[in-house]
Amino acid sequence: MLPRPPHLMTLADLSPRQINHIINHAHSLKSRSKPWLAPQVPFNQNTGNRNRPNRMRLPSQSLFSKTIALLFSKRSTRTRIAAETSAELLGGKALFLGREDIQLGVNESARDTAQVISGMCQGIFARVGDHSEIEASLELAKYSNVPVLNALSSLWHPTQILADLLTLHEHAWAFNNVALKEEKKNAKRTVSKLPELKPLTIAYVGDCANVLNDMLVTYPRLGHKLKVAAPLKYRPPTEVMERVKELNCDKGIEWFEDPKLAVQDANVIVTDTWISMGQEAEKAERLKAFEGYQVTEELCKGAERDWKFLHCLPRKPDEVDDEVFYGPRSLAFPEAENRKWTIMALFDLQFGRWNLDPEQPETAFIEEEVKTGKAAEA
Amino acid sequence: MLPRPPHLMTLADLSPRQINHIINHAHSLKSRSKPWLAPQVPFNQNTGNRNRPNRMRLPSQSLFSKTIALLFSKRSTRTRIAAETSAELLGGKALFLGREDIQLGVNESARDTAQVISGMCQGIFARVGDHSEIEASLELAKYSNVPVLNALSSLWHPTQILADLLTLHEHAWAFNNVALKEEKKNAKRTVSKLPELKPLTIAYVGDCANVLNDMLVTYPRLGHKLKVAAPLKYRPPTEVMERVKELNCDKGIEWFEDPKLAVQDANVIVTDTWISMGQEAEKAERLKAFEGYQVTEELCKGAERDWKFLHCLPRKPDEVDDEVFYGPRSLAFPEAENRKWTIMALFDLQFGRWNLDPEQPETAFIEEEVKTGKAAEA
Amino acid sequence: MLPRPPHLMTLADLSPRQINHIINHAHSLKSRSKPWLAPQVPFNQNTGNRNRPNRMRLPSQSLFSKTIALLFSKRSTRTRIAAETSAELLGGKALFLGREDIQLGVNESARDTAQVISGMCQGIFARVGDHSEIEASLELAKYSNVPVLNALSSLWHPTQILADLLTLHEHAWAFNNVALKEEKKNAKRTVSKLPELKPLTIAYVGDCANVLNDMLVTYPRLGHKLKVAAPLKYRPPTEVMERVKELNCDKGIEWFEDPKLAVQDANVIVTDTWISMGQEAEKAERLKAFEGYQVTEELCKGAERDWKFLHCLPRKPDEVDDEVFYGPRSLAFPEAENRKWTIMALFDLQFGRWNLDPEQPETAFIEEEVKTGKAAEA
Repeated sequence: MLPRPPHLMTLADLSPRQINHIINHAHSLKSRSKPWLAPQVPFNQNTGNRNRPNRMRLPSQSLFSKTIALLFSKRSTRTRIAAETSAELLGGKALFLGREDIQLGVNESARDTAQVISGMCQGIFARVGDHSEIEASLELAKYSNVPVLNALSSLWHPTQILADLLTLHEHAWAFNNVALKEEKKNAKRTVSKLPELKPLTIAYVGDCANVLNDMLVTYPRLGHKLKVAAPLKYRPPTEVMERVKELNCDKGIEWFEDPKLAVQDANVIVTDTWISMGQEAEKAERLKAFEGYQVTEELCKGAERDWKFLHCLPRKPDEVDDEVFYGPRSLAFPEAENRKWTIMALFDLQFGRWNLDPEQPETAFIEEEVKTGKAAEA
Repeated sequence: MLPRPPHLMTLADLSPRQINHIINHAHSLKSRSKPWLAPQVPFNQNTGNRNRPNRMRLPSQSLFSKTIALLFSKRSTRTRIAAETSAELLGGKALFLGREDIQLGVNESARDTAQVISGMCQGIFARVGDHSEIEASLELAKYSNVPVLNALSSLWHPTQILADLLTLHEHAWAFNNVALKEEKKNAKRTVSKLPELKPLTIAYVGDCANVLNDMLVTYPRLGHKLKVAAPLKYRPPTEVMERVKELNCDKGIEWFEDPKLAVQDANVIVTDTWISMGQEAEKAERLKAFEGYQVTEELCKGAERDWKFLHCLPRKPDEVDDEVFYGPRSLAFPEAENRKWTIMALFDLQFGRWNLDPEQPETAFIEEEVKTGKAAEA
Repeated sequence: MLPRPPHLMTLADLSPRQINHIINHAHSLKSRSKPWLAPQVPFNQNTGNRNRPNRMRLPSQSLFSKTIALLFSKRSTRTRIAAETSAELLGGKALFLGREDIQLGVNESARDTAQVISGMCQGIFARVGDHSEIEASLELAKYSNVPVLNALSSLWHPTQILADLLTLHEHAWAFNNVALKEEKKNAKRTVSKLPELKPLTIAYVGDCANVLNDMLVTYPRLGHKLKVAAPLKYRPPTEVMERVKELNCDKGIEWFEDPKLAVQDANVIVTDTWISMGQEAEKAERLKAFEGYQVTEELCKGAERDWKFLHCLPRKPDEVDDEVFYGPRSLAFPEAENRKWTIMALFDLQFGRWNLDPEQPETAFIEEEVKTGKAAEA
């Protein structure tokens, strides 16, 4: 008899230890996979060229020949591509099922759908839309025999914050001017340990939506300070604020209406679109409400000298100007790529192993995988 | 020169020997695959944990790196997921092509489409809709150079009945109270032989559509008695009844208008939705015609004490109440899972080997596969 | 630091040497892959049956566990199936993203999309539609970190002409009655060299669209004579004619209004639909303009006795009658199949190796692959 499958709706469901475990695993998968994804050059015996044909190695066999159902009731390009490429790299399949394929609870009860899909697939990555679908997704988790992972909902966006965290760790040197430069260089040469992150001040400027909500329940628990600027009307809903309180995160969060005050001393400034899918009708009203919130060098004069910029994409020029978005402060594109590596880590740990908990010493995990890799190679 | 590819439109195309061969092969694939689909745990040398990384074994290599085209002119979630997960487990690919991708005979003649697709893919799994498309699907089979398998049509549903048969075999103990309990226990421990099924009385209560049609041409030939309750207006079309006669199945079938008479002494009671896709306009009329047909404990008082319930899903409460559907009599969810294993067996035998006929002693097949598995593992 | 990825928009971007390299590589991949795609029969130790389980060999590992994004703004069945089956055979994944998934430049700038997709995928196969999308596709190539291959645009269709070339080479014996018959026989037995093609006269009769445009910049450079019949109104646009001139191809091209003059002495006659997707409104006007252009035996009386017929499909009876299209002159279906092998060659060389240039002696490539195949098999 298998244990109950580990579901994941928001990072509020995880301990700080688990969150760090996932990020470290993502880093490890990324380091091992990237050389294999490089263009293949013929093996040259004289030069001992290491970039030789990869001979069908996989960084982990946990999803080999398995299928993960992607139940997406709304388009979500980045999340989907990250999931599809991750499954491929793990030797498995992502089966995309859009609104035309399945509408949760419409042609069939969510309960029945959960039982049917979990009888044939080894994981469910669900992107649900409005409130009625969130209800349905609870049914999904209740009756599924395999793990359910929230790909994105109107309330939560756990995989985005994991990607942000991995990106910040990778750029730890940017916040710690001297000591880590050396470590950065070494990182190029070997599968190095993910750099530690000093306690940061992170400012969020804009609409309080799913991205912010998962920041609120996560960053304070990891020792970072969170400063949020948003019009009063666009603050998070009660159910989010209850989770924040439950986890004692409220002590690490400051709220502002003036974005200039929020970015004061910030190491990292984050924003997101003001007009999400489905909010087009409110466009004029929203543009007015967020006047003065556009992230620019001028707005952020009070931030730390080397502040970095995060954006979950797709980006509109309303919320951030080109100078910041395409400039050297912007980590938006490495952040987008890290959607893949963090989703891959979750696919491996949650869907492939049903184990988000590093009860096993982490080294044991890594060793096992390396051995597997060699075995497959031999 | 290859022989003509083996197509399959209905189980009427197969002999009882072939049908049993497919079900046994499905059972074998299921037994070997399920442990590999379980969550992976690190190999533990001390405990000799057998659930170790699967090292890229496949239960059969017959579809490795091959592609099966799924030509689906209508949505069919279960059938599609079964096909996609099956192809993945066999190391191949299911390429889903919906109505937006290809409309048989619309932008290009069915003949040309057949030649083009069968020049690039190794099998065609077709789900056609109305009558004009069934015409087109005959063209498809005529001109395809690779096997065509009927995924579902308005007339026939062969893969559903194979799944039903596998499910009934797996629950043979339920119909044979004592002797098989032991066998059931053993089944947990080893890749056991599929239990034999004693002659059953199977009642179908409801709309005479594709599911029933394939039951009519199959169950009597396997030694089971079939009792059908349906309003006169909703009896099968002439072309189905002709196949029934041709195969001498009519002697094994009794027809009723009163569902209570049909379920008398039944071991198995089967129903299906009264309102299929595309019949929404007739809803009121159909609900009236099938009044009194809902499968309930009360309706089925005259059945055998341990009667079991089958439903191809998706289920609506009209045709069966919650007590039966979610109760211990219901085999609906194991039946749904078996869509996968029986479709996988067909993909392997029909698409991968062009051999639905166990001319080769069945043990030869199984041995060959086991050897292959070991080779891939070594 | 990786070099700039090699993009490919039209065969005008390639040298004759590169074009020949790709065609030869396609032939090599086809020869090695086809036996593995045949139905699998059990290995028979006594008869030494060579068609044994393939044990997960791949003809090239260059795309193993990699993902190619298919950005298709318009339906294109043949191109898509060729791409999806090719990726599968190379051990990788084709990720189809249609108009519902991504609209280049609509929800997100083409620049941002390029960066995001190329951060997660290892190649982009793009099928763009109207003019604004072609602009967007230039942005795509500019900002993508991985190679972009033009799947089909309103101006160019490079992969079609590669398939046509491979098909003509394979049928070289048809143009050279005696000497090559022997070679044709041998070709069945071993992975033979692709037959050389003598200089041909190739006639194009019909609408001057993407297929013709890539013929114009290619055939004259390979030593073939091109004769084009088209109403004045439907001649290629200036930007195409400029590329033709640049490459000195204009000297090898003759233009006609009378199709009978164009097909005079032709070895090969090519046509395409007169009414492409999106041109349905102009149907009556176009049918009138192309009156007398239908390819028939009668029209082509002046051609070489053994002339062969090419059509990129889907075919309508307007432009070619059944006698020619389904007759022994027609190479349309082998040509369709060769879409797969030439696209596979590009996927391997361009996406998998970033090397369209046979600077490396071609034998080195082939040996390396054969070794890889054996290693995977052992």
